[in-house]
Amino acid sequence: GKSGESGESGDTGSGSNHSPPHKVTYLCGNSLGLMPKSTPLLVNKELKAWGDRGVESHFRHPLENQGCVNWVDIDLPVVPLLAPIVGARQNEVACMGTLTMNLNSLLCSFYQPTETRYKILFEKHAFPSDYYAMLNQVRLHGLDEEDAIIQMAPRKGEFLLRTEDILSTIEKEGESIAVVCFSGIQYYTGQYFDMERITRAGHEKGCIVGWDLAHAVGNVEVKLHEWDVDFAAWCSYKYLNAGPGGIGGIFINSRFFEDSNWRPRLAGWWGNNSSIRFEMREEFEPIRGALGFRQSNPSVLDVVSLRSALETYEKCGGIKKLREKSKEMTGFLQELLVASEYYREKEEEGEPHFTIITPLKADERGAQISLLFGPGDVMERVFKYMNERGVICDDRKPNVIRLAPVASYNGFRDCYEGVRVMEEGLRVVSGGRESTNLQ
Amino acid sequence: GKSGESGESGDTGSGSNHSPPHKVTYLCGNSLGLMPKSTPLLVNKELKAWGDRGVESHFRHPLENQGCVNWVDIDLPVVPLLAPIVGARQNEVACMGTLTMNLNSLLCSFYQPTETRYKILFEKHAFPSDYYAMLNQVRLHGLDEEDAIIQMAPRKGEFLLRTEDILSTIEKEGESIAVVCFSGIQYYTGQYFDMERITRAGHEKGCIVGWDLAHAVGNVEVKLHEWDVDFAAWCSYKYLNAGPGGIGGIFINSRFFEDSNWRPRLAGWWGNNSSIRFEMREEFEPIRGALGFRQSNPSVLDVVSLRSALETYEKCGGIKKLREKSKEMTGFLQELLVASEYYREKEEEGEPHFTIITPLKADERGAQISLLFGPGDVMERVFKYMNERGVICDDRKPNVIRLAPVASYNGFRDCYEGVRVMEEGLRVVSGGRESTNLQ
Ligand SMILES: Cc1ncc(COP(=O)(O)O)c(C=O)c1O
Ligand SMILES: Cc1ncc(COP(=O)(O)O)c(C=O)c1O
Repeated sequence: GKSGESGESGDTGSGSNHSPPHKVTYLCGNSLGLMPKSTPLLVNKELKAWGDRGVESHFRHPLENQGCVNWVDIDLPVVPLLAPIVGARQNEVACMGTLTMNLNSLLCSFYQPTETRYKILFEKHAFPSDYYAMLNQVRLHGLDEEDAIIQMAPRKGEFLLRTEDILSTIEKEGESIAVVCFSGIQYYTGQYFDMERITRAGHEKGCIVGWDLAHAVGNVEVKLHEWDVDFAAWCSYKYLNAGPGGIGGIFINSRFFEDSNWRPRLAGWWGNNSSIRFEMREEFEPIRGALGFRQSNPSVLDVVSLRSALETYEKCGGIKKLREKSKEMTGFLQELLVASEYYREKEEEGEPHFTIITPLKADERGAQISLLFGPGDVMERVFKYMNERGVICDDRKPNVIRLAPVASYNGFRDCYEGVRVMEEGLRVVSGGRESTNLQ
Repeated sequence: GKSGESGESGDTGSGSNHSPPHKVTYLCGNSLGLMPKSTPLLVNKELKAWGDRGVESHFRHPLENQGCVNWVDIDLPVVPLLAPIVGARQNEVACMGTLTMNLNSLLCSFYQPTETRYKILFEKHAFPSDYYAMLNQVRLHGLDEEDAIIQMAPRKGEFLLRTEDILSTIEKEGESIAVVCFSGIQYYTGQYFDMERITRAGHEKGCIVGWDLAHAVGNVEVKLHEWDVDFAAWCSYKYLNAGPGGIGGIFINSRFFEDSNWRPRLAGWWGNNSSIRFEMREEFEPIRGALGFRQSNPSVLDVVSLRSALETYEKCGGIKKLREKSKEMTGFLQELLVASEYYREKEEEGEPHFTIITPLKADERGAQISLLFGPGDVMERVFKYMNERGVICDDRKPNVIRLAPVASYNGFRDCYEGVRVMEEGLRVVSGGRESTNLQ
């Protein structure tokens, strides 16, 4: 694949706003999004401000006339860029921390088990970080994890959780469930859960409903406020393109802020009434909004990297248009895959092949399609083949490859290239002749 | 002041390893340390790796031959650089998160109140973020803050806490105290607490003893392991020079790791056994060490900025030598201050003057000296005068200016310049003639 080699835009490869790996077909935005071309400039401006002015940049940024923001408010311009992406009001969103840290912080506040309501419901095979978090939350409260954790698995022989099963579990166990916390999009299968119905079902039983949006944010059009979600957390390094380990984000429903002294939390000065923040008063008066959950002053480099990414995201069309393009592109990818001689509807013995474990309906998935290979080590061999030929995607042991064309920088040609090389790999693994077109 | 104008090293101004604000006398490292000259290069290498290779840099960093580290292990080289600075064994230190978030995370794990032992002891007038954190920790456990929080204030008319008073409070109340958590160096007064004795006294009463090292790390020679401290957290943007909002650090005593299944915590995949981390197993098997408290993958930009800073710190002599130089420099600053016609031993009515509220003994303070001005708005006017003439220090309302010459980049001349301009300011405020030597 040669997409993006000359950085041209259009559907011929990576778009002009991102800096793509050269000579590769990058289908791995589900893991780490590509760098917006504007990011180094913004980051370097802040390094310059630090070098030239030191602490003064907190209140008198030397590059204010170049769009830079005093560090004391560095993350504020990010809020109105984030809010529409997750369907939130502006006071419902804050940029802070990292995903698991944020999830833990929010659980400390939202997971307040009582005698009768003390369970957490989430997925079996959730991203392990979430499992470790929930497990420890339960232990921190001195509860028995066998009892207090409910993990829903797909039915035997199936890969996806059925919405009906989730709803009936909530219906059945809801009275004892304190928090329901699924991922918006399952990292492994790419399944996009029915967030609205699950949230409603949880609320009907009196549960708090939160979401891990790692794979959903910037990928699909979630409507957190409209769906009345209680809380959510996400990272920004996948579909938001804010860079490795970039600063995360949280959503908290504005319902909660009507009560001014709402809920203890993991608190810090950055979440306190900003007009008195530097007066160092011992008065806890948190900002009425998600910003009130910020604990520390944020990393300036991370915040501007996110800002650059969100401005680019906006320039690329914003969530609505990007989701539309994404559906088309992933639909095209799926057509190519289903048309492949190696595609099977169900796993089988014998010859190298793959099945698709992601829902085939566009509304039930995001950009990503997960392929299950068989038999034996076929996945590993095909993955290696693709990787060596510059098709960057990711593998999940033992036998899954995830492909994700991303609307802000991938094109239809990337899908074509990815599938072409994958098929070539399958051909070789099947004992066919290897293409000599090594790049 | 013109220190650092030409970037020369020696005792004539800012050293050659840091990028100083031009034409200023920077005495504000207690708030934000200056940028090491090597930092932009390291940060830009990671931006290049992201741009060129995307996700591949997690396992195959394109600039490995230029000293870069695969992102999957990005923070590991920082650990052996941090450990000696805080007097820790290597498995006792991790680089992660930000100070208040880390303090909260550690308290979630270490503050486990029981019926009889449920109080937190810390300072009255602690940095407010710590107050908000402790207050909310107590509330999260449903406890009454009036009862569960003990804040020690200095004696009437005094600014510093007496060690004897701290020790006797622990002696008296210790049985009901779960956690003792002071700052190593008080941000306002600059007082360096007797960490060793306070830790021992806490332990004698069965308390957990933790420290907020924001103003101590890289400033004074703490010996966390030797002093048997339980936990500590710090930020890296003051005396470590890692940049605004840079990534923080934690210490956890290795005593705790003898028990392999030690303590629930705010957990995440980054703290789990790294050999199985990407196998996505639902087995919580935390790394036996401070690294096991990491929750999320860290920001690559922040980590390399810290790494650059710590390498520079090492190059400047390391903690031992820097602390020696710091004592000399701050001693010199104190001599100049005490010799000033505006210096008074005690506050008084009438003419503009200042007193020193920081301990006068070098072993009881770090780099910083805090000056209390009077009467009325003298502090504000002097601060403005200094600031407009390029002497960068910081003010704490209503009447304190903090001056901190930093051993890794300040020189004796900076102390001289700072005091000279401050005296000039006091002269003007006193109604004397203003120097025309405006820079
Ligand atoms: C003593 C002390 N504690 C806590 C903090 C809060 O730091 P952060 O915003 O990094 O959480 C500071 C910041 O200056 C501080 O000086
Ligand atoms: C669904 C999900 N949850 C949690 C995480 C952990 O993210 P972090 O390391 O930023 O905490 C990830 C990371 O990829 C993820 O995909």
